[in-house]
Amino acid sequence: MKSIDILIKNGWVLTMAPDNALIETGAVAVSGHSIVEIGPEGELSTRYRASKIIDARGGIIMPGLVNTHTHAAMTCFRGLADDLPLMTWLHDHIFPAEARLTSEVVCQGTRLACAELILSGTTTFCDMYLFEDAVAHAAKEAGIRAVVGEVLYDFPSPNYGPVEEGLKYTETLIRQWQDDPLITIAVEPHSAYLCSPDLLIKAKAIADENGAPMVIHLSESEHEVAQLREKYGRTPAEHLAEIGFLGPKLIADHCVAMTEKDIALLKAFDVKVAHNPESNMKLASGIAPVPEFLSRGITVGIGTDSCASNNNLDLFQEMDTVAKLHKVQTLDPTVMDAPTVVRMATIDGARVLGLEDQIGSLERGKKADIIIIDIRQPHLVPMYNVYSHLVYAVSGHDVVTAIVNGQVLMEDRVLITLDVDTVMEDVNRIAESIVLKAGA
Amino acid sequence: MKSIDILIKNGWVLTMAPDNALIETGAVAVSGHSIVEIGPEGELSTRYRASKIIDARGGIIMPGLVNTHTHAAMTCFRGLADDLPLMTWLHDHIFPAEARLTSEVVCQGTRLACAELILSGTTTFCDMYLFEDAVAHAAKEAGIRAVVGEVLYDFPSPNYGPVEEGLKYTETLIRQWQDDPLITIAVEPHSAYLCSPDLLIKAKAIADENGAPMVIHLSESEHEVAQLREKYGRTPAEHLAEIGFLGPKLIADHCVAMTEKDIALLKAFDVKVAHNPESNMKLASGIAPVPEFLSRGITVGIGTDSCASNNNLDLFQEMDTVAKLHKVQTLDPTVMDAPTVVRMATIDGARVLGLEDQIGSLERGKKADIIIIDIRQPHLVPMYNVYSHLVYAVSGHDVVTAIVNGQVLMEDRVLITLDVDTVMEDVNRIAESIVLKAGA
Repeated sequence: MKSIDILIKNGWVLTMAPDNALIETGAVAVSGHSIVEIGPEGELSTRYRASKIIDARGGIIMPGLVNTHTHAAMTCFRGLADDLPLMTWLHDHIFPAEARLTSEVVCQGTRLACAELILSGTTTFCDMYLFEDAVAHAAKEAGIRAVVGEVLYDFPSPNYGPVEEGLKYTETLIRQWQDDPLITIAVEPHSAYLCSPDLLIKAKAIADENGAPMVIHLSESEHEVAQLREKYGRTPAEHLAEIGFLGPKLIADHCVAMTEKDIALLKAFDVKVAHNPESNMKLASGIAPVPEFLSRGITVGIGTDSCASNNNLDLFQEMDTVAKLHKVQTLDPTVMDAPTVVRMATIDGARVLGLEDQIGSLERGKKADIIIIDIRQPHLVPMYNVYSHLVYAVSGHDVVTAIVNGQVLMEDRVLITLDVDTVMEDVNRIAESIVLKAGA
Repeated sequence: MKSIDILIKNGWVLTMAPDNALIETGAVAVSGHSIVEIGPEGELSTRYRASKIIDARGGIIMPGLVNTHTHAAMTCFRGLADDLPLMTWLHDHIFPAEARLTSEVVCQGTRLACAELILSGTTTFCDMYLFEDAVAHAAKEAGIRAVVGEVLYDFPSPNYGPVEEGLKYTETLIRQWQDDPLITIAVEPHSAYLCSPDLLIKAKAIADENGAPMVIHLSESEHEVAQLREKYGRTPAEHLAEIGFLGPKLIADHCVAMTEKDIALLKAFDVKVAHNPESNMKLASGIAPVPEFLSRGITVGIGTDSCASNNNLDLFQEMDTVAKLHKVQTLDPTVMDAPTVVRMATIDGARVLGLEDQIGSLERGKKADIIIIDIRQPHLVPMYNVYSHLVYAVSGHDVVTAIVNGQVLMEDRVLITLDVDTVMEDVNRIAESIVLKAGA
């Protein structure tokens, strides 16, 4: 028998591998950071002696979810202001709160986000915000996988000051975190409306030079598109194509207000899309034409966007919304079927982030980013179909165990790497100071 | 000091009473089936000596939610068939499964629904299905409040046979359950497309005679409206108005495909509406014009519809969908604000069912239907606004305690009136037999 670190057994193993294997009473063997083997429990139990055995108790063993768009530290602003026109929300509530941000606040807000993400089954997130060095440290400390990048725009930032410094800050992040097993640094200009062509081109050069992914907000609303048309006489996607910004390592967030030509550009340049339906609904931005993206072969992942516009980071709930929203939008109950949506939240999410060789499915040699769902609960009985269950019935609260890179981050709903009471207290203190200052 | 049965203390008391009182560090005193007093904890603690003290630990104490439209026993078909065209779903999957229904299956399916409802904070549901005597018994046994009625249609039923027997069955139910503290019997013809005018008129006569509420599916899709137009030359609402069926004790489920005239009819006759956005999305039926209903002063509650088309009974998740869906539909982030949506799920839901004098808010003299939300969890930190939290961040899993009619049904997530393992096993056995028969 071969010695390994972890054997997860007694569950439905949903691999999300190319063969779509689903093994009833299966097991997953983990050694170090990686998956060693997946198969029937009977076989693996005789083949491996594990330091730790995790009993899935008949639940679902599957790849951890990939949240392709977050502003993690904005957990501090969860529910600070809702049901408001976008500009009132931004200018009267979010921007004033953000003007007081510090590295410490971002770190504590991100820790809370990591707690929420792990507790709801997400094992990788892709973040854009300020003070992203703090985000990277918080994620690393929590043991969660993350793609992080400092937001860049034409005006001065509370973190780095003028944008030239932002580009340098990004290059420093790339150097500091290179070869980190969990953290990938991305280059992240905010959007075509907040970034000059000059900034976008410089950002792209840094990304290309370092082989780094890029993240940008793209066509979140018709208002944004109208703004760009007025400024440049073209849509945001056309504008980015024109200046040579589009490419396969670009992650475009939202993509709500898209023309036929825009969609063709995404496809032609193999741009990846992060779809954030709940945020788009809550801010009344619109509905991204995701069924069309998929029929064109564009890779789409799912994101929650921030807690200020959602107001949670539960990707299982987001999957439910993805499946249902496009059905009613197209008046076709067959679009966005459950297997498609689970793919978007796992292996396709990994593809969006350029991490598909490492994560997104349970396959021999891939990193051990694994979650277990407890299905012995009234709202998960009976189970006719695993995919349907994951999309329409499971919520993040049903995730009992989470493993990232071979490290157990949560077991039986208890977080191991984070002191949850301290994490909550820290952010409650931040919120109190925000309320005090807003009242002053 | 006055002796009472239960004192709930140390929480935010959200009353949903006409004055919208919200008491930080409040308490609720319960004696027998009713609420005796609501106020600051300091005052109530000195005034009452309670047999049982429940510590809300800083959470939210609020009225139990009211689910205005369910087919509870269809928990047995949760995820049986998804992502299919409506007619394939109904004729190839749901109808064959329903043809084999028995009173025992309905009872066991309803018990599972009651478990799920209580666990997610719903304390009253309004049900339409077959073998509703079994539903009433299962609800009563679980201690949950319910409005139930046997579905009536022109063709023979697996329960009562020909529809004349269905009308008699309904009258018997009304007699049997009259004056029950938890169960109200409604008269429930399925819809204008499955019920002849003769049946509808007879049903209405029984309802009027007994002062019973009525429930009907109304304009769930454009397809249904087209069918009615072809048959009668008018919309379902016009048709029902024409035959004298509309009135203030009528609960109309769905109301998705509505004309201006239809909406005016609902208002003129004070018809109540049960809004089921997730089911309408999943079946690609359409989006009910709820903001318009509300602006006209029509009373609207929220429902989940069945587990076959949702696939859960979590009314907190449904609230989130209500708030977000109409924002993106109208492209206005200010519609369906959080307080409005919480009202729909509580006091307005009670109004829909005609139970507003008994439940839907925490007020002295009302029945003690109360839930407690645990907010000491990462995804519920921080809390700036209670209403926003309930709609956009809380899920049913966060409900720790549920009380109906003064009886504690759940404490610290443990169900008291139902043996949850047996309840789950029973429905798993039903599901196995459905799968076997479908495969045979």
